[in-house]
Amino acid sequence: MTQPAFKDNAPLSIHRQHAAQKWFRLLRDEICAAFEAIEGNQAEGPLSDQPAGMFTRTPWNREGGGGGEMSVMKGRVFEKVGVNISTVMGEFSETFRKEIPGADADPRFWASGISLVAHLQNPLVPAVHMNTRMIMVGDPENPTRTWFGGGADLTPMTPREEDTRDFHAAFKATCDKHNPDYYAKFKPWCDEYFFLKHRGEPRGIGGIFYDYLAEDWDKDFEFTKDVGKCFAEIYPSIVSRHQHQPWTDEQREHQLRRRGRYVEFNLLYDRGTRFGLMTGGNTEAILMSLPPIVKWD
Amino acid sequence: MTQPAFKDNAPLSIHRQHAAQKWFRLLRDEICAAFEAIEGNQAEGPLSDQPAGMFTRTPWNREGGGGGEMSVMKGRVFEKVGVNISTVMGEFSETFRKEIPGADADPRFWASGISLVAHLQNPLVPAVHMNTRMIMVGDPENPTRTWFGGGADLTPMTPREEDTRDFHAAFKATCDKHNPDYYAKFKPWCDEYFFLKHRGEPRGIGGIFYDYLAEDWDKDFEFTKDVGKCFAEIYPSIVSRHQHQPWTDEQREHQLRRRGRYVEFNLLYDRGTRFGLMTGGNTEAILMSLPPIVKWD
Repeated sequence: MTQPAFKDNAPLSIHRQHAAQKWFRLLRDEICAAFEAIEGNQAEGPLSDQPAGMFTRTPWNREGGGGGEMSVMKGRVFEKVGVNISTVMGEFSETFRKEIPGADADPRFWASGISLVAHLQNPLVPAVHMNTRMIMVGDPENPTRTWFGGGADLTPMTPREEDTRDFHAAFKATCDKHNPDYYAKFKPWCDEYFFLKHRGEPRGIGGIFYDYLAEDWDKDFEFTKDVGKCFAEIYPSIVSRHQHQPWTDEQREHQLRRRGRYVEFNLLYDRGTRFGLMTGGNTEAILMSLPPIVKWD
Repeated sequence: MTQPAFKDNAPLSIHRQHAAQKWFRLLRDEICAAFEAIEGNQAEGPLSDQPAGMFTRTPWNREGGGGGEMSVMKGRVFEKVGVNISTVMGEFSETFRKEIPGADADPRFWASGISLVAHLQNPLVPAVHMNTRMIMVGDPENPTRTWFGGGADLTPMTPREEDTRDFHAAFKATCDKHNPDYYAKFKPWCDEYFFLKHRGEPRGIGGIFYDYLAEDWDKDFEFTKDVGKCFAEIYPSIVSRHQHQPWTDEQREHQLRRRGRYVEFNLLYDRGTRFGLMTGGNTEAILMSLPPIVKWD
């Protein structure tokens, strides 16, 4: 994860890698600080007798190139939240070359991103996922393709009108600021992606999802940064809204069963999870997304 | 699931379907009775203050042809055990035709089988899986290919020498009775199949696994029946050995985490689970294999 030294006259692509990687780390720091502040705010109400959670940070190296840092917190508001940043590079395997734009010509890749999943103690607070990433394919100094992808989606145990409204409104505003067509494209993409076909159920209430964004690097990067900033603002406000509300055993039991759907989605469908596990990624970092306790009837 | 009426002069393949289906149902009945007897035997010791479990049977129909019966018991020994029998028929989709022997010529299929997964209250009692099935591909009255498959594998939370030894010995004896080469082939097949590549861990201590067995129908059927009978004898004896032993909270916590591996295997790798869910099978029957309560760190 150490940033490689580079000169000012390095190729543009190297400057871009540096900028993206730096941003994902900064965003990670901001989100972790905001989540620790939320833990501090639980000085009264449910589980306030437990200590406020703090993130534990664990670096890891990837065989084949690069690595990352997992940040995990198990607290009195966040039952388990994982925030992972990683920057990895290497060559796509034969199998994946056909699926990745540009990889048939030159299978080398460079990828950097942030990924976050939070499972809350309080069943009235929605679980959440956020991820943004930048991918380069080909020669690192002169890539064939460069793009951004990511998004965020909210998984309430029982959807509440105001949370759904505010979450969507925040990402709509972020999209609209950059391109009037984005929201109409990225919201349905999210609904389509986070859908459990075998259950005929959406995973949650959606959000936005985008991939292969390669219109203009500077603008795409600004958009990707704004998606992260939007998340860092809207999600803590939804947590604050509900974190002091008491819950019933019945609501907790319902939450544990809804978490089963989250596990089913991540292991059966999620591209990042399956891709990572099948290609020798860091198992602990990838499966950080799994809930701490789950029930199936 | 009602057995279709057929005449004595019906084609041999129809007689075979009838015989296999009848056997799977009989085996189901025998196993359920044996497991209910085990529940009755827990009149003292851990959780003996809870009522003895009894199976609830739920029939289901499959869109496209056939159906099955789920039997589920939530008891004081068996925290959750599901025994599913099903007989389904139809046509393999374009995607699967290439993967199934004989299906490229005629994509029609008929399949019948029994599938069982047990998760126990007591962390000292191993979880277990057993499944046997008969598949026909092509014209039901004159199939292109007919074969048997199945096996059983044991998943102790902490392996114990005597359980591992007895489980393997029982299936070795069953294999040896039919063919001196079977065990040397079917034991490693099980080890290879029930392996979590992303963890570099076996799911449990193994057992046997076989597929595409099409040497001689009558002999293959006898072997498949004996695999079921072997399971119905050895597994209850292992349960009886440990069911009255008290356990610690630490052992229970370890069990809940080991169950996470079971979920990971079933959703990431298990062919039956993924095949069933992706092809519109009965979700409840397929996911009956998931443990009732699971933890991930």
